[in-house]
Amino acid sequence: MLAETFFNRPPRPPGTWKMLTVALCMALLGCLQAQEPQGHVSIILLGATGDLAKKYLWQGLFQLYLDEAGKGHSFSFHGAALTAPEQGRELMAKALESLSCPKDMAPSHCAERKDQFLRLSQYRQLKTTEDYQALGKDIEAQIQHEGLREAGRIFYFSVPPFAYADIARNINSSCRPGPGAWLRVVLEKPFGHDHLSAQQLATELRSFFQEEEMYRVDHYLGKQAVAQILPFRDQNRKALDGLWNRHHVERVEIVVKESVDAAGRTSFYEEYGVIRDILQNHLTEVLTLVAMELPRNVSDAEAVLRLKLQVFQALRGLQRGSAVVGQYRTYGEQVRREQQKPDSFHSLTPTFAGVLVHIDNLRWEGVPFILTSGKALDERVGYVRVLFKNRAYCVQSEKHWAPEQSPCLPRQIVFHIGHGELGSPAVLVSRNLFRPSLPSESWVEMEDRPGLRLFGRPLSDYYAYSPSRERDAYSVLLAHIFHCRKDSFITTENLLASWVFWTPVLDSLAREVPRLYPGGAESGHLLDFEISGSQLSFSQQQLEQLVPGPGSVPVPSEFQVLRAKYRESPLISAWPEELIAKLADDMEATAVRAVQRFGEFHLALSGGSSPVALFQELATGHYGFPWAHTHLWLVDERCVPLSDPESNFQGLQAHLLQHIRVPYYNIHPMPVHLHQRLCAEEDQGPQVYAREISALVANSSFDLVLLGMGTDGHTASLFPQSPAGLDGEQLVVLTKSPLRPHHRMSLSLPLINRAKKVAVLVMGRMKREITLLVSRVGHEPKKWPISGVLPTSGQLVWYMDYEAFLG
Amino acid sequence: MLAETFFNRPPRPPGTWKMLTVALCMALLGCLQAQEPQGHVSIILLGATGDLAKKYLWQGLFQLYLDEAGKGHSFSFHGAALTAPEQGRELMAKALESLSCPKDMAPSHCAERKDQFLRLSQYRQLKTTEDYQALGKDIEAQIQHEGLREAGRIFYFSVPPFAYADIARNINSSCRPGPGAWLRVVLEKPFGHDHLSAQQLATELRSFFQEEEMYRVDHYLGKQAVAQILPFRDQNRKALDGLWNRHHVERVEIVVKESVDAAGRTSFYEEYGVIRDILQNHLTEVLTLVAMELPRNVSDAEAVLRLKLQVFQALRGLQRGSAVVGQYRTYGEQVRREQQKPDSFHSLTPTFAGVLVHIDNLRWEGVPFILTSGKALDERVGYVRVLFKNRAYCVQSEKHWAPEQSPCLPRQIVFHIGHGELGSPAVLVSRNLFRPSLPSESWVEMEDRPGLRLFGRPLSDYYAYSPSRERDAYSVLLAHIFHCRKDSFITTENLLASWVFWTPVLDSLAREVPRLYPGGAESGHLLDFEISGSQLSFSQQQLEQLVPGPGSVPVPSEFQVLRAKYRESPLISAWPEELIAKLADDMEATAVRAVQRFGEFHLALSGGSSPVALFQELATGHYGFPWAHTHLWLVDERCVPLSDPESNFQGLQAHLLQHIRVPYYNIHPMPVHLHQRLCAEEDQGPQVYAREISALVANSSFDLVLLGMGTDGHTASLFPQSPAGLDGEQLVVLTKSPLRPHHRMSLSLPLINRAKKVAVLVMGRMKREITLLVSRVGHEPKKWPISGVLPTSGQLVWYMDYEAFLG
Repeated sequence: MLAETFFNRPPRPPGTWKMLTVALCMALLGCLQAQEPQGHVSIILLGATGDLAKKYLWQGLFQLYLDEAGKGHSFSFHGAALTAPEQGRELMAKALESLSCPKDMAPSHCAERKDQFLRLSQYRQLKTTEDYQALGKDIEAQIQHEGLREAGRIFYFSVPPFAYADIARNINSSCRPGPGAWLRVVLEKPFGHDHLSAQQLATELRSFFQEEEMYRVDHYLGKQAVAQILPFRDQNRKALDGLWNRHHVERVEIVVKESVDAAGRTSFYEEYGVIRDILQNHLTEVLTLVAMELPRNVSDAEAVLRLKLQVFQALRGLQRGSAVVGQYRTYGEQVRREQQKPDSFHSLTPTFAGVLVHIDNLRWEGVPFILTSGKALDERVGYVRVLFKNRAYCVQSEKHWAPEQSPCLPRQIVFHIGHGELGSPAVLVSRNLFRPSLPSESWVEMEDRPGLRLFGRPLSDYYAYSPSRERDAYSVLLAHIFHCRKDSFITTENLLASWVFWTPVLDSLAREVPRLYPGGAESGHLLDFEISGSQLSFSQQQLEQLVPGPGSVPVPSEFQVLRAKYRESPLISAWPEELIAKLADDMEATAVRAVQRFGEFHLALSGGSSPVALFQELATGHYGFPWAHTHLWLVDERCVPLSDPESNFQGLQAHLLQHIRVPYYNIHPMPVHLHQRLCAEEDQGPQVYAREISALVANSSFDLVLLGMGTDGHTASLFPQSPAGLDGEQLVVLTKSPLRPHHRMSLSLPLINRAKKVAVLVMGRMKREITLLVSRVGHEPKKWPISGVLPTSGQLVWYMDYEAFLG
Repeated sequence: MLAETFFNRPPRPPGTWKMLTVALCMALLGCLQAQEPQGHVSIILLGATGDLAKKYLWQGLFQLYLDEAGKGHSFSFHGAALTAPEQGRELMAKALESLSCPKDMAPSHCAERKDQFLRLSQYRQLKTTEDYQALGKDIEAQIQHEGLREAGRIFYFSVPPFAYADIARNINSSCRPGPGAWLRVVLEKPFGHDHLSAQQLATELRSFFQEEEMYRVDHYLGKQAVAQILPFRDQNRKALDGLWNRHHVERVEIVVKESVDAAGRTSFYEEYGVIRDILQNHLTEVLTLVAMELPRNVSDAEAVLRLKLQVFQALRGLQRGSAVVGQYRTYGEQVRREQQKPDSFHSLTPTFAGVLVHIDNLRWEGVPFILTSGKALDERVGYVRVLFKNRAYCVQSEKHWAPEQSPCLPRQIVFHIGHGELGSPAVLVSRNLFRPSLPSESWVEMEDRPGLRLFGRPLSDYYAYSPSRERDAYSVLLAHIFHCRKDSFITTENLLASWVFWTPVLDSLAREVPRLYPGGAESGHLLDFEISGSQLSFSQQQLEQLVPGPGSVPVPSEFQVLRAKYRESPLISAWPEELIAKLADDMEATAVRAVQRFGEFHLALSGGSSPVALFQELATGHYGFPWAHTHLWLVDERCVPLSDPESNFQGLQAHLLQHIRVPYYNIHPMPVHLHQRLCAEEDQGPQVYAREISALVANSSFDLVLLGMGTDGHTASLFPQSPAGLDGEQLVVLTKSPLRPHHRMSLSLPLINRAKKVAVLVMGRMKREITLLVSRVGHEPKKWPISGVLPTSGQLVWYMDYEAFLG
């Protein structure tokens, strides 16, 4: 009688679901089809004599050949460049001289394989369309001549991006293999400079290649410790299942520190800076590997790519305050020298950045992901550090704590990308956490190195593993290209999602003056930074501004609140921040008193932009606010569904409600959406709201009504010449706004004037004229509804910032 | 034109406000009135020859005399006991021999003052009513004779609590001073054994004394470091204002460790245990000082007491899982020996406890307060440690960190109560925090003691202050009694609030077998404990049960889920915990699929007790649940206001909604409360809900309906013989329950059966009979409404725990 459960269980991806495009599916299908049949593979390395090729790519191709030749595929390797054939051949021969075999290979065997590889490799000049046509023909001829079946062609673009378009056009028109064989083009960063340029480049490439044909390299994904993140999470699911979430993770640090500076490379660097160079690509990719939901099968490339993309969708947008930036002190001079700039030239390019990233899903909400990179720092090192919360209390005094047992010593998992004092890739797991499982053929336990301390603890406090054989990232990635493991590369969607995420903060940092640092150990604590709320700031106050930046508005150094009268009522005026703080304080005090006296506090709030800062202030700084006893009402509402971004209620929900605890039944949105209609007369929304007010608010007298004032003198949603709401019996009315959305619901002036207190918040330079005008007019609500605000027996107070009041 | 702001600003107390009683106000008024006039003060020390008197009280009285005599008051000191006059005098003389003067007082001056004090002190036997009458008369006579004005009388009860009633009666009837002079009685703990006994004792005492006349001593409030907490918070307001809250405080540890055991005191200890002995009083008092809102004026005793009381109101109720308890291994043997118990006697009295306290207000929500005390530990020490969150990232490697500057080193404030390696009271503030302000006349900076590490850091990492003169707690408190500083004592309200807090966990621990520990350093990590969710548990699994405890139910060691059929539909059965986990998993999978396919998920939930565990599981363990796209509906509701504790919605709010993020407008409570009436026919609540369902849920077909089953076969709020809801067209109906509250609203069977999936959760032994019965009946919804659940085109699954299914 056994029966399967009826719930089919897909992998568990959270967040939104809509961005999966056809392109991705096509890409993977194409790849899977191409995977099977064996045959001849032509690999064309464009830029065969360049630095990257010399340093990594030829060696990677040789490794690929060592690994794959003899498993059914045959190979030919074409080095290509703009250089003329004779000279090119010489340069390429030089580049190939230094190929090396794995350490455990016998020298004679090595020489033999190297010889085979060299015989399969040839140089050719690729400059003109004819050159490409000739290449295409030569490959076909060779295959025919040798009676081979063609499996596919790999074009590796180790060339500057400006050359991409031409090459791509030529490959597309002249070098595509015949039906049944695949084409793969491998692209190197930079993939654009911001969202727009990345999109342009992507569109251009897409006109030549299918998504599944493109392999964008982020070589960090080939670094062994990074490539181990998903397998580690998979193989240690049982231990990590309960730990890998906001309840247990204190923070995640993703760090690449460099000790070198940008000397000699400033022409590139000056255009990119550290965020584009390291954070937008490498660190962001690592972030997604740490944060993504784990697919049931981590080898399922489609699932991996889909779940990585979901991380982008859950990222909280970055703001200017999300980052701190620095520049090493000699950078400016280097730029001026290398680029012949005048002495007056000051670069704002950051060479150091710390960025706070939040992921707004249930798994990670509230966990800070700290991304940091910089040049001219005290050491070269890269790592991902997952620090767990310390939730233990250890009864015995510290001297009795044993590293393997004590729950009070730090618990962390580190993917050590490389360098640093450790000097190699590694995976470290605190011994008081669990003994991890790693693939024993490729990762081995490290020997202790007494004296070596990592992340506050001696190495012996960790289960520490390093690769049994260190492999270069490029040889790992070349193997993945060959095996069509798309999940090790950057899809167009992934790339654009990353730029969507980074571009706003790059734009807003563009005019920020970076903090200067001396570089090396001398920087001391100058670059240390801290999280406060959702912002980052340097821990040390800067004593002197070392580079003259664009002028900034002077800010009053002391809390200044001016008390005066406006329209015969008290006026409080201050700089915006102080004004909001003062209003929030006063509101809290009023709320506390109301709850003390009556057990509850009825607060009616306006929408708009000024209250947003107020809501944030109330949500974060006011512990004494008696929210549990507060009823929230709306002063006015737009006739849109409550969940519409234009709804006043939606603003209240986003900026206040979700941060505090007001009982559901104390929240009173305006009934603008009844019977699936918006503000229909027949639904009597105003009457419904009026009845709710009458029933719950003693004497229909709110404890506090917060109003704003429009540049036309409107308040609530009571506009000049409004036929309703300015007088009469009605407590709540439907009105029309000159601005869209036109239909509104609003408390009436008579109801507002029954309140015990009314506060009017007016902020910004735009309000200066109306502020002046209204200060002079009498009681003329038809012309200026705000002039009709005068509580019958309550109090009225004006809160105006200096811009609005003094102008 | 300056005008005062209209908001009057009371101190900022959060939480509820209702418990302030008249008694408290009277107490303080009485005190203030009595404060002013000077005159003669008689101090009667009851138990004048006892241990406490010898050790602390006589010295404290002498100190009071040294401090106060000559400022206008005159004194007489009466030592009293049951001992006959002659012998009593001798014993008292002995006790007084060791009185000492402050170190800086010249010996000759000291001898002179001591002499004066002895002349003012006399012994008298207080045994019978006549003795008390005589005392009263003698005091009056003395005052008259010397032509003095009487200021007041202090009676210090240094006697066992069982003697309180008699003494109190006698004092009340025979020893009250005349009008215009005050009476103060000083009481020593224990103040009861639980809430009931404390209340009885309080009622008894109140029949003899006014609240303002009673001074209940908790001598921890006189310890210098504890007494410094509020002044410290006050004098460092500026630095602490932004720090002293949940955003910055990682945790608070309040700890009293003892190295001695209970030998010789087991007759007392066996009745009380560590929680009653230390946590319920001392540690709780300290907690309130740390956590309370700070009054504007910390010398305002009334405000301090009121705000302390508010902390109690915000305390989250303790559960059995809130505490871990231990017992040192030789305790049992000591009890058996000292109390002549048989070998078969096993004590369950804890000698060690760790308790997790949460304060549910906006300032402290989520911050763990860890209270710990124990005997036979590795050292004697007491402290309050406020550890701040580390929100910094330090760019340079650790070796470059400077203690004064690095934001990455621990930041903590410690009120060191005494003993430990430091050996004295102290206030420590990490140097990377701020330089604290302390009253320089009474606190001085400590010299560094190289090698001494405290809380993970050398002493030199702290600004460290110790009292310029160590004062005993009792002499501090005697001065406070004299100066009427009621805030250093335990009011009746405070006492009872503490017992209300502690009694439930004491009751539930009464049958818990404490973990045995060897004692001293040998205990190793055996007593270390950790927070998981809202529970505490020992970090190390216990390998052997050292004391045979009351039998416990065996628990299956592996996840076991039985799949079978029930009423022709799939049945999933497991132990309760696994069952809930499985159901939550299945729900999440269903939700994920629905959102993937339709963009939203419509879930209808039942009330009752079984879903509570499910809600908690969903709230804490299910990161992939697409809450932002989920609509929550109610299966049924009781006709009570939504905020009523009996409301199903209220359960949903408390156990699920407040932990997750569902947009306000996706929540659909049943409209049982329209137009301020409950389920009135005229309000057409069922029609309103039905229309809402039709409008939002495609085809009125919920994605998942969660049902329960009652012992009478009811489901939703559809009861046997219900005239509505079992068939017909109506989607939502009003029904009647045989149990109170009788009136209900419910989805109808036809609507339920339109669902895509229906899950029925049945748990507990109580359901065994109906489970068996329903397994055998056909489609008979009139008799057993649950038998009518059969989705037309959807799926039905039964989730039953073994108790319900296998019995």
